[in-house]
Amino acid sequence: MAAKRQLFLMSSSAVHGYNYLDHVQKDLPAFMKSHGVAEVLFIPYALTDHDAYTAKVGGVLERWGFACSGLHTHPDPVAAVRAAQLIYIGGGNTFLLLRTLYEKQLLQPIREQVLERGVPYVGSSAGTNVATRSIQTTNDMPIVHTPSFDALALVPFNINPHYVEPEAGSRHKGETREERISQFHQLNGAPVLGMREGSTLLVDGDHATLQGQTQARLFRKEQTPVEYAPGDDLSFLLEERT
Amino acid sequence: MAAKRQLFLMSSSAVHGYNYLDHVQKDLPAFMKSHGVAEVLFIPYALTDHDAYTAKVGGVLERWGFACSGLHTHPDPVAAVRAAQLIYIGGGNTFLLLRTLYEKQLLQPIREQVLERGVPYVGSSAGTNVATRSIQTTNDMPIVHTPSFDALALVPFNINPHYVEPEAGSRHKGETREERISQFHQLNGAPVLGMREGSTLLVDGDHATLQGQTQARLFRKEQTPVEYAPGDDLSFLLEERT
Repeated sequence: MAAKRQLFLMSSSAVHGYNYLDHVQKDLPAFMKSHGVAEVLFIPYALTDHDAYTAKVGGVLERWGFACSGLHTHPDPVAAVRAAQLIYIGGGNTFLLLRTLYEKQLLQPIREQVLERGVPYVGSSAGTNVATRSIQTTNDMPIVHTPSFDALALVPFNINPHYVEPEAGSRHKGETREERISQFHQLNGAPVLGMREGSTLLVDGDHATLQGQTQARLFRKEQTPVEYAPGDDLSFLLEERT
Repeated sequence: MAAKRQLFLMSSSAVHGYNYLDHVQKDLPAFMKSHGVAEVLFIPYALTDHDAYTAKVGGVLERWGFACSGLHTHPDPVAAVRAAQLIYIGGGNTFLLLRTLYEKQLLQPIREQVLERGVPYVGSSAGTNVATRSIQTTNDMPIVHTPSFDALALVPFNINPHYVEPEAGSRHKGETREERISQFHQLNGAPVLGMREGSTLLVDGDHATLQGQTQARLFRKEQTPVEYAPGDDLSFLLEERT
């Protein structure tokens, strides 16, 4: 079933030293063109101003030669998902995003389109979190309650976007990102891919490859974390069941 | 009803330049002695190793001259709460802590003891989060689902413990703490007190005072944040209803 999935999962849209989305200005248009996409369905639910958010992302996509419409402008969101050439979920607050997907009953339609019909999926930050098995490794504040933390499960593991080590010389005593992921693993078994800003995970059916400018760090329960570099094959993560 | 509450709410137990809990080695024993406390009931549910956690905190308390028992060692947790001289909830993962309080049906008994009978309450980090109206401004990962984000509501506002600004020169593009609190305020009205590590909020009935080594930053919906210093009166926060 999953052999059809085509995913482009970004750690973030903003990366130090780049304008908004410029760090993927080669890879993302190439991904979209390879699937014959002319128009993008953008899901702006992770932020509250849907028009402004769609204009921001749509402006970049249009500069690259793609049309873009915000899901919030479609009278029937489920029908819009079923008609989409490509589904792109942007970042923001992961809880707000997932709650809205539940409220509008969009999880199953998106899953079907991506896993069964091969509709390409682009996610960034919160949009990458919801593409995984759950939002349990988000960095966001729980500003709204969600009926569950289960997400789209387009891949069978978790991702921590914006993965980062403490700044050198930091005096902060709050948990590091690695410590938070370790807490997750005390109670959950799924691998967690810590994707630094600038990192993209490209999934083509049962093949996963790291792309972008930065490394990713893979955390497994009770194991030493492992670093992966752009170009590395991460397909083994698609086969694991926890 | 709330006139009896006696709260000692710490941003964190670890502070740069201090050994564990040493930053409150004057203020916390003074708070406990002023209420005639000889034995502390420690609630270690925010971490998974309850024995080790209770030993760590209890070791400090015993050095200060107080006895300490972990709630997990009592056969009837609700009865233990009802018999406690002082309730101390330690930090860790806020979601795990709140879920366990729900599972063991401890929220209402703790509320009654603190608000109606004046049993002193000490919280740190996650234990401070759950003392407020909700855990919606925690920094922790949602490693377990909770039936609600509503917490003990011993005070009618939110706290963000471990409050911190970005390190100077940071290249990280993920949301700052201030941006995350701003997202909370797009959908919620409650004030959020951002307590830097080393900051304590002391609540005596309807009076609240900032204590400790660091300032706190108060965030209100659609208003410019305001800084408060140790010694400042924050009683106005106890009167607000949102």
